[in-house]
Amino acid sequence: MAPHVTVYEVGPRDGLQNEPAVLPLEEKLELVAALAAAGLQRIEAGSFVSPRWIPQLADSDRLVESLPPSPELRYVALVPNAPGLARLRRALDQAGANGPAVDAAVFVSASETHNRKNVNKTIDETFAAFDEVVGPALAAGLRVRGYVSTAFGCPYEGPVDPGRVIALAQRLLALGCYQVSLGDTVGLGTPNQVRELLSRLLARTRPEQVALHMHDTRGCALANVLVGLEAGLATFDASIGGLGGCPYAPGASGNLATEDLVHMLLGMGYETGISWERLVDAGALAQRLVGRALPGKALQAELAARTAGRTRSDPLASR
Amino acid sequence: MAPHVTVYEVGPRDGLQNEPAVLPLEEKLELVAALAAAGLQRIEAGSFVSPRWIPQLADSDRLVESLPPSPELRYVALVPNAPGLARLRRALDQAGANGPAVDAAVFVSASETHNRKNVNKTIDETFAAFDEVVGPALAAGLRVRGYVSTAFGCPYEGPVDPGRVIALAQRLLALGCYQVSLGDTVGLGTPNQVRELLSRLLARTRPEQVALHMHDTRGCALANVLVGLEAGLATFDASIGGLGGCPYAPGASGNLATEDLVHMLLGMGYETGISWERLVDAGALAQRLVGRALPGKALQAELAARTAGRTRSDPLASR
Repeated sequence: MAPHVTVYEVGPRDGLQNEPAVLPLEEKLELVAALAAAGLQRIEAGSFVSPRWIPQLADSDRLVESLPPSPELRYVALVPNAPGLARLRRALDQAGANGPAVDAAVFVSASETHNRKNVNKTIDETFAAFDEVVGPALAAGLRVRGYVSTAFGCPYEGPVDPGRVIALAQRLLALGCYQVSLGDTVGLGTPNQVRELLSRLLARTRPEQVALHMHDTRGCALANVLVGLEAGLATFDASIGGLGGCPYAPGASGNLATEDLVHMLLGMGYETGISWERLVDAGALAQRLVGRALPGKALQAELAARTAGRTRSDPLASR
Repeated sequence: MAPHVTVYEVGPRDGLQNEPAVLPLEEKLELVAALAAAGLQRIEAGSFVSPRWIPQLADSDRLVESLPPSPELRYVALVPNAPGLARLRRALDQAGANGPAVDAAVFVSASETHNRKNVNKTIDETFAAFDEVVGPALAAGLRVRGYVSTAFGCPYEGPVDPGRVIALAQRLLALGCYQVSLGDTVGLGTPNQVRELLSRLLARTRPEQVALHMHDTRGCALANVLVGLEAGLATFDASIGGLGGCPYAPGASGNLATEDLVHMLLGMGYETGISWERLVDAGALAQRLVGRALPGKALQAELAARTAGRTRSDPLASR
């Protein structure tokens, strides 16, 4: 069993981009600081897609310039194309030599329909754009993460051939991505499916090259994470409080909530480097910033316990 | 892998007893009929505790008399003591020879504090009361199911010794219960804990004698069900739409939603005998009857898809 699991936080990017409200830069930085204070060491916090596409993240240039550096903390920003990469590099230049460590991330869907609705390109056209991103990013000393969305089902096409997902993941790794995160964009995946896909993929890759980005749209995210843990994976994406979804995937509410993931991991004895209490503080902050209750279940249970003044539910106590 | 899994529906009892509104008998029967029409073959639908304790279920006598019989369908009613058993037997007498098949269920907590708050008795006093229930019920030709609540953590005492849970489960089976359902009353259980408890318990019992009643309070219910499936269990409790919790366990919102459970089971290829579409119909009815949106995730995802007129998410398609 893996002693350490990396929780990859996507709230400030995947989460906030799906909020109707556009948070001011200062509040985004407040959220990032709370997540870092909780001990998260991977935080996705910006997107260099066109500001017209996603106004919520239009200030990603200034955000990246302002991210607080920390020795163990790596940020990640989405970079879909050459102009996006230029923006990321300019922001990093502005931040200077003592600025934050920021990786780039590229994304493609496993289904043509979802990919077209997401980025208005075929999958092959998307990879053609990657040629202008991944190689130059690596040459500039950046690390690049890849995403395969709709890896366990597409809201438009239905079932997705695992062979296609595996081929796309291998193609991203061959380009030089250090890790590929398999996204269950609309939460259709179930454990046997995840097990089969991982079994085939891990015959060709190392476990640290693969992450899972499960959505909890139908309540199955942690069961699928459990299958990933058993297959040897040690990186799982989640969003504070369950912020966000996918604006181009109808019905795709339900990023896995970071608190739910961490509660399970701590209860199972994994090391995460995360403070449970400070993580819940970050979830409470996220709720205040977006002005509504978030769907994360462990967050709500813990906040109810705090309000009642009861002993908190310590995940470590239930090992 | 087990080819068939029994989904044990607790919504009309565990769910409704925690609703502020008291549904009229006709609406309870409408809900039960919808659940039966979806193919559920175990439905917990009444409680013969004192009507003063749980006014929501005070009409359980008339409810049991009116339950529609069906060849494959067994109902279950909670029976805490001798007066409760007398009420159940009277109701069955009223229903007559062509009435419904109704099992009795008895319950005890694994933690003294929770048990006292739940039934105002020590655990030993609770078992003393069982002597007046289980034996006489069996003698009268009834089947009896047992519950061990707070089996994976207590809101008052914290961690619960698995040895104590195993001893209580064995004690219930020795009394003549055909099955013991282990309840994660406040949703504190995590997979390693479930695996360890089941591994020890199943060394002494047969898998069909054990069921899991997981709450999704912290999002981990289906991961724990997955562990149960892998251990060979084939009965899991759930509540339509995620209705209910436990009124004496603070923060214990979150029965596992039947739709979430069934979505995972169908996606994994298990046979349940349940119609996905009719199950969602039953969830939609439950929402109408209680007058609010229910927390079940697969229910909300499916209803959103129906509203949008899109192809429904067919769990069978994602196998």
